[in-house]
Amino acid sequence: MKIYKRKVNYYETDKMGVVHHSNYIRYFEEARTYFLEEIGFPYSKIEQEKIISPVTSVTCQYKKPALYGETLDIEIKLVGLSAVKSTFSYIVKNQNGEINATGQSEHCFLNDKGRIITIKSMPSFKEALDKELEEEN
Amino acid sequence: MKIYKRKVNYYETDKMGVVHHSNYIRYFEEARTYFLEEIGFPYSKIEQEKIISPVTSVTCQYKKPALYGETLDIEIKLVGLSAVKSTFSYIVKNQNGEINATGQSEHCFLNDKGRIITIKSMPSFKEALDKELEEEN
Amino acid sequence: MKIYKRKVNYYETDKMGVVHHSNYIRYFEEARTYFLEEIGFPYSKIEQEKIISPVTSVTCQYKKPALYGETLDIEIKLVGLSAVKSTFSYIVKNQNGEINATGQSEHCFLNDKGRIITIKSMPSFKEALDKELEEEN
Amino acid sequence: MKIYKRKVNYYETDKMGVVHHSNYIRYFEEARTYFLEEIGFPYSKIEQEKIISPVTSVTCQYKKPALYGETLDIEIKLVGLSAVKSTFSYIVKNQNGEINATGQSEHCFLNDKGRIITIKSMPSFKEALDKELEEEN
Repeated sequence: MKIYKRKVNYYETDKMGVVHHSNYIRYFEEARTYFLEEIGFPYSKIEQEKIISPVTSVTCQYKKPALYGETLDIEIKLVGLSAVKSTFSYIVKNQNGEINATGQSEHCFLNDKGRIITIKSMPSFKEALDKELEEEN
Repeated sequence: MKIYKRKVNYYETDKMGVVHHSNYIRYFEEARTYFLEEIGFPYSKIEQEKIISPVTSVTCQYKKPALYGETLDIEIKLVGLSAVKSTFSYIVKNQNGEINATGQSEHCFLNDKGRIITIKSMPSFKEALDKELEEEN
Repeated sequence: MKIYKRKVNYYETDKMGVVHHSNYIRYFEEARTYFLEEIGFPYSKIEQEKIISPVTSVTCQYKKPALYGETLDIEIKLVGLSAVKSTFSYIVKNQNGEINATGQSEHCFLNDKGRIITIKSMPSFKEALDKELEEEN
Repeated sequence: MKIYKRKVNYYETDKMGVVHHSNYIRYFEEARTYFLEEIGFPYSKIEQEKIISPVTSVTCQYKKPALYGETLDIEIKLVGLSAVKSTFSYIVKNQNGEINATGQSEHCFLNDKGRIITIKSMPSFKEALDKELEEEN
């Protein structure tokens, strides 16, 4: 599990006075970027290997609205890995440890022609993800 | 079922050259606004009754990336209604009838103090939603 | 002058209860897309000619906040055209004819290698823009 | 002058493969939040005094596109202060010191009823801004 810290921006609020629900999906993406950097696979490296890993599904459960000025912890965990799919889970908490939202995302692996590939074709990436998965469980 | 038509904007694309996945959550919201207008409950009317109906959960499955310049049909359907929760489903299709994404959202009902209320306290809104639900099924 | 109609979306509001100021820059872009379609140069056609026309500067003056539920008229006009630059002006009005914002944007022309080109290399596009400019003035 | 550091997020890119031009306006806002915190006026404090300071105009000149994965320095400076208006300037630079964009924003002061007020009604805020202005020049 890794924790990505993130301040809420003014432009992310809506007229209800809280973070618009669509922005949590963007926070999840930022947390993934951070996670991949932490395990040695920053975007630049993945790009060099001509791999992209798009989102195939996302879910989010909203518990307590986050507010402008708050600093959020986004806990991200790799919870599943198959030959063709990775699954991440997220918990967003405010500075008081209250849960704002939880969620999950699934991702496939594509080559630079947009064809589905298996993670076996990227042994070092597979190894790094396998290591994370083991540590989590 | 109602169909909300929507052109893809340039600023909604990302460096993969397709609509960024977070924007579908925003398209769903636009489709709900349209749906509520169509059944006689535009935002102004709901606001007068001092009700808000925030999203409590959302899911989205991504099938085929939508592109800039495309015109999307967002099919929206009320698929569930209890005293404290409404559930909508969505199918996003491009101009060729191909499915870009599917999804669901759940919503509760709050008064202007942020307290949860039941839909029974808004009989005319309940009636309109009940009518939609019957027609769907 | 062309008029692009546009409803304000909920997710475009901020905690001040009005459209966030950054979104007007996006409305301007939507209006340009509309303008170019109307003069026979939809994005697909410009893309075929392997031209892009990025924004080199933008200004916006905010007069009266636009609100969720409002339908805006975005008046767009080509106000300048040189070999290497086009200039558009914008007036955003609400349904009561009140001015929400005014602005301007400047654009250069690039080929698909990112090199600056002059509009003379696209005679049909130049002709269409020249015609607009004449009609305006 | 204060420097706000900011990584580019994936969802801020567009199909040209670079940060969408509208996002710089949002980066400017983030930099202002940071600036105000640094001079002792975080949002929470300004809110307590029932003041808001909306944007009345913004300009941005685009020099070199910023890319996903880059870390930007946003240099922010208070360049003007009158009874009813503050003016900030911005320079966005990448990690190589290259200028991505420059800009300016102007702001008025409103009370919680939306009425224009002068900065004299907030002596401590005026003092903090005056001090910044002197140091700059």
